[in-house]
Amino acid sequence: MNPQEIESLSFQIIDREAGPHGFDAAEWEIVRRMIHTSADFDYMKTVRFHPLAIARGLAAIRAGNPVITDTEMARSGIRKASVEAFGGSVTCLIGQADVRMYAEKAGITRAKAAVDMALPLMTDGIYVIGNAPTALLRLMEQIRAGQARPALVIGLPVGFVNASESKSELAQMDVPHITNLGRKGGSNVAAAVVNALLIMAGRTS
Amino acid sequence: MNPQEIESLSFQIIDREAGPHGFDAAEWEIVRRMIHTSADFDYMKTVRFHPLAIARGLAAIRAGNPVITDTEMARSGIRKASVEAFGGSVTCLIGQADVRMYAEKAGITRAKAAVDMALPLMTDGIYVIGNAPTALLRLMEQIRAGQARPALVIGLPVGFVNASESKSELAQMDVPHITNLGRKGGSNVAAAVVNALLIMAGRTS
Repeated sequence: MNPQEIESLSFQIIDREAGPHGFDAAEWEIVRRMIHTSADFDYMKTVRFHPLAIARGLAAIRAGNPVITDTEMARSGIRKASVEAFGGSVTCLIGQADVRMYAEKAGITRAKAAVDMALPLMTDGIYVIGNAPTALLRLMEQIRAGQARPALVIGLPVGFVNASESKSELAQMDVPHITNLGRKGGSNVAAAVVNALLIMAGRTS
Repeated sequence: MNPQEIESLSFQIIDREAGPHGFDAAEWEIVRRMIHTSADFDYMKTVRFHPLAIARGLAAIRAGNPVITDTEMARSGIRKASVEAFGGSVTCLIGQADVRMYAEKAGITRAKAAVDMALPLMTDGIYVIGNAPTALLRLMEQIRAGQARPALVIGLPVGFVNASESKSELAQMDVPHITNLGRKGGSNVAAAVVNALLIMAGRTS
């Protein structure tokens, strides 16, 4: 089997084992890819979509607006050639020297500093958080303050401290978002959500 | 809380919720980091250590031997500065032009081609597979053929086709390995195993 055949067979297995669900076709395409990348059906129960999330995400991708990630892992997992085919790019600021400098000067974590430094860049773009709850908390703070205006927040930090809390908060916020409840998540799952959107954006544009 | 305090609190929560287990201290340090990165306690039940795995992994790191990954995501998740502090490097061949050329010429997947192209490099090194079961199957084939001689195989591919099968096979092979049974796994979990070894190698060398 070649990689396409393996993926197609994987999706058949997921469809069969998932059974009936309440997702529409576009939502299921995203959830299925989250399951595909994690082998974890929990996401069926925990995922939360803001009503405008998919439409805004597709529009942002098609407009070539930036995709910004909290980690290099998430950046690595995103199909950059697909983003670039629409004229966009995938950026992760966490490792940049100016972010490090700003974090030290302001006495904040690099994850927070990277959100602040990305403020001018993220307008109408997609902000992807797969690792750091502190980044998601900071992003929501900046959205509430009117400083951050992303088209879509993909908020899937993982972990035992503040991941669940930050995502519960995002799930109730009136900003287009895709998130999940609970501790699970991760850069791989976050990247899978972006890749599902990229495939949809390419297919129906 | 700063990132170190968050990590330390996370480990306390994991220790408490995990309860009693049969892992020795070094094994638990690895399993705990797998749980930390995935928020998934399943790894306690499914992880498998070859008796020589940790000793060989630590020796390879301290000798500065190469760490080779199947994906850029796994490479991104590994603390490269720690590998480099021992004189080693983290390499992923999958995106290289010569791997693509060889894959096309031989009519095999790039995942397989990347294993073949890494043969001279991997001797006494650590081979990390977090994504592609085909890469793990090829690596085991080359080990059995006497062509591949890694010090340690970290085999944690994820997915619905051949991931579980390939890992069951690795778990029974007499080559130093860290793997898990079942479909779950991933580049993030594989990177977490390497990072746990790096921390141990740094602490006790």
